[in-house]
Amino acid sequence: MSGMITPGEELESRCSALQALMAAEGLDAVIVVQNADLFYFTGTIQSGCLYVPVEGPPVYMVRRDAERARIESSLAEIVPFSSMREVSGIVAGCSLPEPKRIGMELDVLPVSFFERYRKVFPSASFQDATPLIRRVRMKKSAYELARMQDAARQVDKVYRHAGESIREGMTDLDLAAELEYVARKEGHLGLIRMRVFNGEMLFGHTFSGADGALPAYTDTPLGGAGLHPSFGQGCGRKRIRPGEPIVVDFAGSCDGYLVDQTRIFALESLPERLLAGHDDMLAIQECMRQMAQPGAVWGDIYDACLALAVEQGHADNFMGYRGSQVSFIGHGVGIEIDEYPFLARGFSDKGLETGMVFAFEPKLVFPELGAVGIENTFHLSENGLEQLTFSRENIVIL
Amino acid sequence: MSGMITPGEELESRCSALQALMAAEGLDAVIVVQNADLFYFTGTIQSGCLYVPVEGPPVYMVRRDAERARIESSLAEIVPFSSMREVSGIVAGCSLPEPKRIGMELDVLPVSFFERYRKVFPSASFQDATPLIRRVRMKKSAYELARMQDAARQVDKVYRHAGESIREGMTDLDLAAELEYVARKEGHLGLIRMRVFNGEMLFGHTFSGADGALPAYTDTPLGGAGLHPSFGQGCGRKRIRPGEPIVVDFAGSCDGYLVDQTRIFALESLPERLLAGHDDMLAIQECMRQMAQPGAVWGDIYDACLALAVEQGHADNFMGYRGSQVSFIGHGVGIEIDEYPFLARGFSDKGLETGMVFAFEPKLVFPELGAVGIENTFHLSENGLEQLTFSRENIVIL
Repeated sequence: MSGMITPGEELESRCSALQALMAAEGLDAVIVVQNADLFYFTGTIQSGCLYVPVEGPPVYMVRRDAERARIESSLAEIVPFSSMREVSGIVAGCSLPEPKRIGMELDVLPVSFFERYRKVFPSASFQDATPLIRRVRMKKSAYELARMQDAARQVDKVYRHAGESIREGMTDLDLAAELEYVARKEGHLGLIRMRVFNGEMLFGHTFSGADGALPAYTDTPLGGAGLHPSFGQGCGRKRIRPGEPIVVDFAGSCDGYLVDQTRIFALESLPERLLAGHDDMLAIQECMRQMAQPGAVWGDIYDACLALAVEQGHADNFMGYRGSQVSFIGHGVGIEIDEYPFLARGFSDKGLETGMVFAFEPKLVFPELGAVGIENTFHLSENGLEQLTFSRENIVIL
Repeated sequence: MSGMITPGEELESRCSALQALMAAEGLDAVIVVQNADLFYFTGTIQSGCLYVPVEGPPVYMVRRDAERARIESSLAEIVPFSSMREVSGIVAGCSLPEPKRIGMELDVLPVSFFERYRKVFPSASFQDATPLIRRVRMKKSAYELARMQDAARQVDKVYRHAGESIREGMTDLDLAAELEYVARKEGHLGLIRMRVFNGEMLFGHTFSGADGALPAYTDTPLGGAGLHPSFGQGCGRKRIRPGEPIVVDFAGSCDGYLVDQTRIFALESLPERLLAGHDDMLAIQECMRQMAQPGAVWGDIYDACLALAVEQGHADNFMGYRGSQVSFIGHGVGIEIDEYPFLARGFSDKGLETGMVFAFEPKLVFPELGAVGIENTFHLSENGLEQLTFSRENIVIL
């Protein structure tokens, strides 16, 4: 287990970064309750909450399981508790002042849970701490990058296995099951954490031909049929045939960290229009590469890529088909699949920073035919843009 | 796709049942936004919300994808929209009165989303509609039961595959990957929906020996090591050895409906203490069978089972080891794994009703040794208690 423990210095620097933003914002405390954020700030996920004062060490209050929290977390202050009524007493017992302005994760915290915290601190005012947490989490450390590099190696194995296992007549579900199996054996947690309310995602999306062109409720350029309307996204039971694009969009997962990659396969051949479209998406990736400097505005990258796609003649097909197009082309990746930055329409006030990791996924959708395009995960390092995912980028004709 | 469509009569009777409870509660409208509830009341999951007036047909407002909603849902009123600002106008346009008292799913709805709905209806008061929704959803129709019976057949295949694939030296992860693969090929959606905030679960839990006795943050009798503290539950990388209990707790999934089953395997032999403990858990299942009549109080069933376990000498081992014991023994199952009823301590004001489906899981945890016990999914029918999951209940010695 010791090799799995998030180092204490990591937790300290993450907490300090949050506290600096809290001080600037005038917050006395942030109470962290959501799993992904708890893992980030404590190194473990237990039932409970992390109380981060604006100054001094954080206090991890753990309902279940305190003993395990002490094994898995490098934090010094781990306090068992069993009722919300104890929370304010624990804070006072740690010689911390009563908080007047408290931040919580209001984008994910359900109303009824929030009300319980309001009762614990009835005279405090509350505001959304998620923008601060997102800003801390968006800059990845060397420790985090090493995990994501492992995840990139995992997803390359999945990609190579796809090349070996795709057969005419197998269903998209058959292929997905093969790839999920390989990923799990490689240590994939089996869980893709998505922050947005109602966000649900499996390992990724695998679909062939026309099924790749079906729009879904997901905020993704490609939707898919799904197996049933109760989960109408991703692979369905369509059988793979020669001459159609087979999309393998797969998130690798290592020690809680994700990377996102998409590649295209085909049996025998593909229509010229799709081959040319794929090359166009590689050109859009190049366009992004040129722009992705520290300070580059998130929305500007989206706008420039969209403009290039329109110039290429793909106005109706870029990032979805007309009527179902999404308005982003990239998203931050880390513990969750939808972190900062959002390379999306309208994000005109935020720029890229070194340490950011994001997936970039220019894709084209052609009704009846399917989808082509590329997705890689990039790290904006001190030395420029580094690509974490590294599988061959051309369409693999089998 | 047509065989996959939830029949219109199903949706109508579900909506009517909700409207009857709304009328009794004095609610003018319920706005449904969460995926599982949307699927239940519309037959599909789209990005949007379902507006249920206390009288008249519901209106499904769909941001994405309206065309797909029309294919997958039998509802008559499906209205595309793109901004929250349109919501009140759509309600008025459907000749519905302005709602004064609105119910929403406050146990799952994040604070920031709730605030947007409050702005749409600034003069309305809001209350939690989830207790009403839970009460409607807890009574399963013949249509729903048929799906759960299919899920029970799927989970039996998984169980039989476990018997064929368990080998000395394989890891718990290896076994989990095998079982997940089989389930996926059988059409398992790959998703276990859990309503509770921060609820995260894969197909189930698979672990051997001492790993089955590790407590975790999950509100489950068994926790498990997990692969990493970022998801510290379920299978780890422990190797399977002779003489230790191998727990296979697996949720089958068919057309959006779940069943839950646990069985125990072992290579060669098991200590007498564990064999006897398993028989004791079968006796507790019998105790529940005797009590599970319409009107039986949820908490009374838990109390009686706990009393029997104490009498059997398992006070320290029942439903977890001392210090990490959970205070329930059964949970409703359907679209989510944590539905009504809760056979749990303190639920003294609610009784069983015909149509309810619940998992019942008496289990024993012995530190260093592991866990034994049983889990089945039951349906309280007009003719008494029916068992949906049907795999052999004895410990399988391989």
